[in-house]
Amino acid sequence: MNAVDLIIKKRDGGEHSAEELDFLMEGIVRGTIPDYQIAAWAMAVYFRGMTRAEATAFTLAMAASGETLDLQGLAPPGKLVVDKHSSGGVGDKTTLTVGPIAAACGLPIGKMSGRGLSFSGGTIDKLEGIPGWSAELSMARFRSQLREVGLVVAAQTATLAPADRMLYALRDVTGTVPSLPLIAASIMGKKLAAGADAIVLDVKCGRGSFMETVDEARQLAELMVSIGTGAGRRVTALVTAMEQPLGRSIGNNLEVREAIDTLKGGGPSDFQELTQAVAAEMLVLGDPEYRREGEAGGDAAAREAAMRRVQQAVDSGAAFEKFVAFVAAQGGDTAAVTGPVGLAKAPVIQELKSERDGIVSGLDAREIGVAVAAMGGGRQQKGDSIDHRVGVVLAAKVGEMVSAGDTLCTIHAADPEAAEAAAARIRKAYSILDAPSRGSDRAGRPGDEERSGAGGPASSVSAESPIVLDRITS
Amino acid sequence: MNAVDLIIKKRDGGEHSAEELDFLMEGIVRGTIPDYQIAAWAMAVYFRGMTRAEATAFTLAMAASGETLDLQGLAPPGKLVVDKHSSGGVGDKTTLTVGPIAAACGLPIGKMSGRGLSFSGGTIDKLEGIPGWSAELSMARFRSQLREVGLVVAAQTATLAPADRMLYALRDVTGTVPSLPLIAASIMGKKLAAGADAIVLDVKCGRGSFMETVDEARQLAELMVSIGTGAGRRVTALVTAMEQPLGRSIGNNLEVREAIDTLKGGGPSDFQELTQAVAAEMLVLGDPEYRREGEAGGDAAAREAAMRRVQQAVDSGAAFEKFVAFVAAQGGDTAAVTGPVGLAKAPVIQELKSERDGIVSGLDAREIGVAVAAMGGGRQQKGDSIDHRVGVVLAAKVGEMVSAGDTLCTIHAADPEAAEAAAARIRKAYSILDAPSRGSDRAGRPGDEERSGAGGPASSVSAESPIVLDRITS
Repeated sequence: MNAVDLIIKKRDGGEHSAEELDFLMEGIVRGTIPDYQIAAWAMAVYFRGMTRAEATAFTLAMAASGETLDLQGLAPPGKLVVDKHSSGGVGDKTTLTVGPIAAACGLPIGKMSGRGLSFSGGTIDKLEGIPGWSAELSMARFRSQLREVGLVVAAQTATLAPADRMLYALRDVTGTVPSLPLIAASIMGKKLAAGADAIVLDVKCGRGSFMETVDEARQLAELMVSIGTGAGRRVTALVTAMEQPLGRSIGNNLEVREAIDTLKGGGPSDFQELTQAVAAEMLVLGDPEYRREGEAGGDAAAREAAMRRVQQAVDSGAAFEKFVAFVAAQGGDTAAVTGPVGLAKAPVIQELKSERDGIVSGLDAREIGVAVAAMGGGRQQKGDSIDHRVGVVLAAKVGEMVSAGDTLCTIHAADPEAAEAAAARIRKAYSILDAPSRGSDRAGRPGDEERSGAGGPASSVSAESPIVLDRITS
Repeated sequence: MNAVDLIIKKRDGGEHSAEELDFLMEGIVRGTIPDYQIAAWAMAVYFRGMTRAEATAFTLAMAASGETLDLQGLAPPGKLVVDKHSSGGVGDKTTLTVGPIAAACGLPIGKMSGRGLSFSGGTIDKLEGIPGWSAELSMARFRSQLREVGLVVAAQTATLAPADRMLYALRDVTGTVPSLPLIAASIMGKKLAAGADAIVLDVKCGRGSFMETVDEARQLAELMVSIGTGAGRRVTALVTAMEQPLGRSIGNNLEVREAIDTLKGGGPSDFQELTQAVAAEMLVLGDPEYRREGEAGGDAAAREAAMRRVQQAVDSGAAFEKFVAFVAAQGGDTAAVTGPVGLAKAPVIQELKSERDGIVSGLDAREIGVAVAAMGGGRQQKGDSIDHRVGVVLAAKVGEMVSAGDTLCTIHAADPEAAEAAAARIRKAYSILDAPSRGSDRAGRPGDEERSGAGGPASSVSAESPIVLDRITS
């Protein structure tokens, strides 16, 4: 077997055998296949794709490229260890809520997580705003905390699916990132290596995520469910909307604060909806009680029962208690999440006002993410440090009416210059249309919009757009 | 400008500007763009192609990547320096005949040539069978010989279009060789750098060449003519057949011998036809006399007049005289090409006999080329040494009748084992069908063929198939 033949096979639309994919993966990890051959092959995959069998074999090879976690025996009898993955988005703090909720419902949640890059945040970045909290855990501690607290969030170690890091670094500089099978293998390779028996995937689509259309997101979701199922795991994927930011807070400490509100039963409605949906799917996958419910009353009945259990965990305070225990277990100062002083705040807090009356017809999530990252809240490059204090709290979201002088959002910045720069960018991210209900003859006339973002027409504007767009299960 | 953006642009079907292609070329030559990015870009080009404007700009950048020859002032007044290129094939010794003929007609022929690889021979390899003959000429000597003898064949120097060598080496190991614009740029980049004002291209198609179909060959021919014209050169391309070997001799010294026969007015009819066609095109492009003829009587009249002139150069002995002078000028022992002893012969000469009666319906050129290379007549890898003595002389070609016991071909080998191995391979290269004219009730029945090669059905078999299939001119 040699690399050129495999490149030519894929170039010509052929299907690789598992042995061929193992050979390629070994070449990546050991460096026995030069980068230029891997790059040419990846570009051929970009154009030709992979069958599900190929994508599954490639993902298994990726998972096997380094250490794999064995979480057997860490779940209570009958239950499964459940993991959760989000494809990333702006304001996505879902792990911070669904982890404690599911754990409070008795499901062990052991999660390897990453750091944010570009406009999209990372769960570990958010939690590191809590003084003392650390994601650097030994395997032994990961296992003991999973058994004792039922919830762990650790930084992905370099030994977990190392081929993914190597291949991703090459794809990043060769224009081969947006290939569905390579994206799916990257995500699922790490998930499989991380050892969970069941996985809930949150595949986001829209301007604030890496998949721009629902269709692309659905294809990715289906492929990942197929790969996970092929690898013997139980997997459900939700396709969820990320046109505008999730919730109202974007920026690390602000997002932790919003997650705490949500764990206590408050928080923005869209984030509540997503939290409940993802947590319920985790229960349905990992807890045999809901499986039995499903066998008796069908899928929808199982989810309804799980949803009730989730609500109960929030209402009883058990979910928030679990969060505090989790913070403490990883060295965090619990006073920062329970006390009146809380997490560090930015020195400059400034409101951005609407210049006109109207209805918010669009709010470009990516632009908001970029604005927060530019204030120091995210990374331009790997290894950049982060200012956890900065961010944006959105007062007005899509479908909401505003009057001239109303606050659109509050900007939390390190200094006035950064706040001004963010304000200019965020103003452009808002699309505001004349409100049809105002009855003026100017209503809805084209050219009348105050917009630069990607917002849709006023007729499709709604504050009640669903977050969960589709559901694919194994 | 950065390489990733250019890869993504091409991946998404965009058209590069000349500046972008210059940037890529500089990155290839100076090594400022890493191989893995060039490889990914080349694969994107494989899938997306290039417009003619892109291919022309890329070729010009390739030609400018190293030294360029200035042949101005070396042609007699009014005439152009003419170069000729063949895309390579089995038994193709056309340069050995058309060079002396055109030079004998007063056109200066200055040619940079390469060495053979795999199943396809190279002009320099053939000439190096003449004791003392050398292709290693200084630029000064190239120019003086062109002025004094009117014919030079030199090894392509490393300083001529060095980007081509670098890019080709990378394409060879990344599955990106068969891309029309990259092939065209590779060929034409060297031709443009080599300085000729006019170029005749012989683009071969069929099993014994790198373009398997007429359609592919025509596309390549059209693209190269367009590139050459865009670069201000006069270019004509012939699309020629290479299903079976050209002529009857394959193997270095045997081919020189056949070229000499042809220069003297003998030689196989297919090779005569191609020699005359290519030489006439060179005259039409490079000699204003035939251009004037064309203006008066049209294209066909110009070619007819050139053809008569070519015939005259052969009949008068001037063409062969020019060949001898050329051999002498580059240090060759003229006795080897004029004397009774001639070029070195192989120690083992063995006939391959037909096992049955029938008509030769196919003769796989590639298999014959591979058989000769395996006997030591060609290279498996760059740098391999060559046995100039070995080869095959075909007694029976497509469309010819054979009886059981007739000689199919004569094998010239270094030892009996090599001859046996070649015999086995060559037997499979021949497809022999029952001859329809024999009137037997078995004639033409399927399953009755003695064949393993790629020969067509008996109905399409003809000894008189034309060699020149199409002609494209600027």
